[in-house]
Amino acid sequence: MAHRVHNFGAGPAALPLPALARAREELLDWGGTGMSVLEHSHRGDAYEAMHHDTLLRLRRLAGLPDTHEILLLQGGASMQFATVPMNLLRPGEAADYVVHGAWGDKALAEAKLVGDARLAGKHPTCAATVRDEDLALTPGAAYVHYTTNETIHGAQYHQVPDAKGAPLVADMSSDIFSRPFDHARHALTYAGAQKNLGPSGLVVVFVDKGLLARARTDIPQILRYQTHAKSASLYNTIPTFAVYLLREVCVWLEERGGVAAMGAENDRKQRALYAALDEHPGAYELPVERDARSWMNVVFRLRGDGAEARFLAEAARRELVGLRGHRSVGGVRASIYNAVSEASVARLCELVRDFARG
Amino acid sequence: MAHRVHNFGAGPAALPLPALARAREELLDWGGTGMSVLEHSHRGDAYEAMHHDTLLRLRRLAGLPDTHEILLLQGGASMQFATVPMNLLRPGEAADYVVHGAWGDKALAEAKLVGDARLAGKHPTCAATVRDEDLALTPGAAYVHYTTNETIHGAQYHQVPDAKGAPLVADMSSDIFSRPFDHARHALTYAGAQKNLGPSGLVVVFVDKGLLARARTDIPQILRYQTHAKSASLYNTIPTFAVYLLREVCVWLEERGGVAAMGAENDRKQRALYAALDEHPGAYELPVERDARSWMNVVFRLRGDGAEARFLAEAARRELVGLRGHRSVGGVRASIYNAVSEASVARLCELVRDFARG
Repeated sequence: MAHRVHNFGAGPAALPLPALARAREELLDWGGTGMSVLEHSHRGDAYEAMHHDTLLRLRRLAGLPDTHEILLLQGGASMQFATVPMNLLRPGEAADYVVHGAWGDKALAEAKLVGDARLAGKHPTCAATVRDEDLALTPGAAYVHYTTNETIHGAQYHQVPDAKGAPLVADMSSDIFSRPFDHARHALTYAGAQKNLGPSGLVVVFVDKGLLARARTDIPQILRYQTHAKSASLYNTIPTFAVYLLREVCVWLEERGGVAAMGAENDRKQRALYAALDEHPGAYELPVERDARSWMNVVFRLRGDGAEARFLAEAARRELVGLRGHRSVGGVRASIYNAVSEASVARLCELVRDFARG
Repeated sequence: MAHRVHNFGAGPAALPLPALARAREELLDWGGTGMSVLEHSHRGDAYEAMHHDTLLRLRRLAGLPDTHEILLLQGGASMQFATVPMNLLRPGEAADYVVHGAWGDKALAEAKLVGDARLAGKHPTCAATVRDEDLALTPGAAYVHYTTNETIHGAQYHQVPDAKGAPLVADMSSDIFSRPFDHARHALTYAGAQKNLGPSGLVVVFVDKGLLARARTDIPQILRYQTHAKSASLYNTIPTFAVYLLREVCVWLEERGGVAAMGAENDRKQRALYAALDEHPGAYELPVERDARSWMNVVFRLRGDGAEARFLAEAARRELVGLRGHRSVGGVRASIYNAVSEASVARLCELVRDFARG
């Protein structure tokens, strides 16, 4: 049995052990082919069957109707910050961005380099999401972009914002498949794989076929959504191992009961952790407003000089790792993605209580 | 011991067994950290140390002087087809493309969508590279692009073309590190990793720092070479496992004596295989001109009805796989990249001789 710690890192993050164990088992000889999956051509029958099975499983897990296409792309969510407006925003049109954290900010900054991207609402401290009544939407906007969960600041949308009929685009990198979500109500959702879906180097896009058909074709071939849609994401060489691991994660998710069961488990995890923190307001400060608390990234600060360093040291002693907050905001952040077990969260709750008691 | 076949696939291709075995060994617990390398943050000390060691090893293997920067990017060579002109080609400038196969064609087609990219020379049948005297170069071109080795057609440059002083850009996806090469003489060289360097999902770029400093900054942040140069290719989440395997491949290459030793071995491999084919001109037809024969992708056709299918069936029986030619040209193609051993090539030579004798 390999030595394994409790990994609360924000991404690349913990992966389901059964997925890793399976990858390990067949790393030199995949399915009796005498080659690693890493050595298979993306044009070969074995890879293609696995690839299409991955697309099917993604569709099933997302409850994604036939109105939407699935794309598997490279470059991470950061590449989508550019390709969303490159594909969907035309000269003369505007796109609205709703920002409540660092990732929304980045998405907007990149979109401004592409076209007329506008800030339609921003939470001043990122301690909550932006309320619908605070949105200043552009009539006839090409789309409205928001970030479902801000990984760094720890505030999450618990309802879909009202875009007044404009196509909704959501960056779901840190909460995709963490609980049921209405992808079909969105024109486009995207997620870097390295938090809830698999390894880094892959981004999953769900896009409405009508929107796709109207996407721009006056940009380089490789950057067009249509290029990848037409070829089932096999236009060029795909990161085959990342897709393989994504499929293993999907298998694991389905075996656990899919996204609904995962949502119930994640709800238990977040309730347990926030409850432990709330019990000790003298020790812990939670910057995020209660109704916007993230189920995935639990952000808190310790009161008192040197307490944070002592907390992190004690965490390390107990083999609870990856808890340091993002360098831009400091503090502590516990990322409790799908692959972080209830047992790991229970160990963290124990630490939270023990440390507060001194 | 895992069952392993002889893999002559064109890419993703055979990987060095020691690299795979090492990855397998530590897939659940990397360096005693209690996490897979796949689960480590790209901002963590463990990953960063490995990342910078990979850059160092690449520099050493390439013999790359300090005049050049190394970038590790996503999207494969196909993304470079777009980002090379996006970064290096300005309105009012022209870039020259020299084409002797399908990949050069694709690079040119993509560049034409970005700016004034011109065909400066093309081999009519792709049976050889383009001779310097057949080039029609644009005076003052932003750069001259060529493909060192055409994976599909099997013709390779055995000398650097004369660009008359213009910056040289080379797509080296299928022959990087296969033998000594003067990267420093090139303004930019790039290579998708999935042939000679590692898994798919990663592309390595060597770029002259002067050229880099003058690269365009009026394109999206994520597509700028400068963005990635400034952050040592850690601007956004990198495909960490692909970098890890790339490093293992570099370790393996250095243990074998580096690129010079690899070149000597590859020379023996290509001589042996072409010799076996040349012995039987009644059975095998080699479409590529002798002085442009690729050391990496040995392309041939079988004479006689049904002979190709019989050859491939016999190959499969002997566990020699991945030999079918690219769907666009047919025939047989043996890709004998660095990780394909002399022993595997010897088995293929045996088949070539046995089959011809009937």
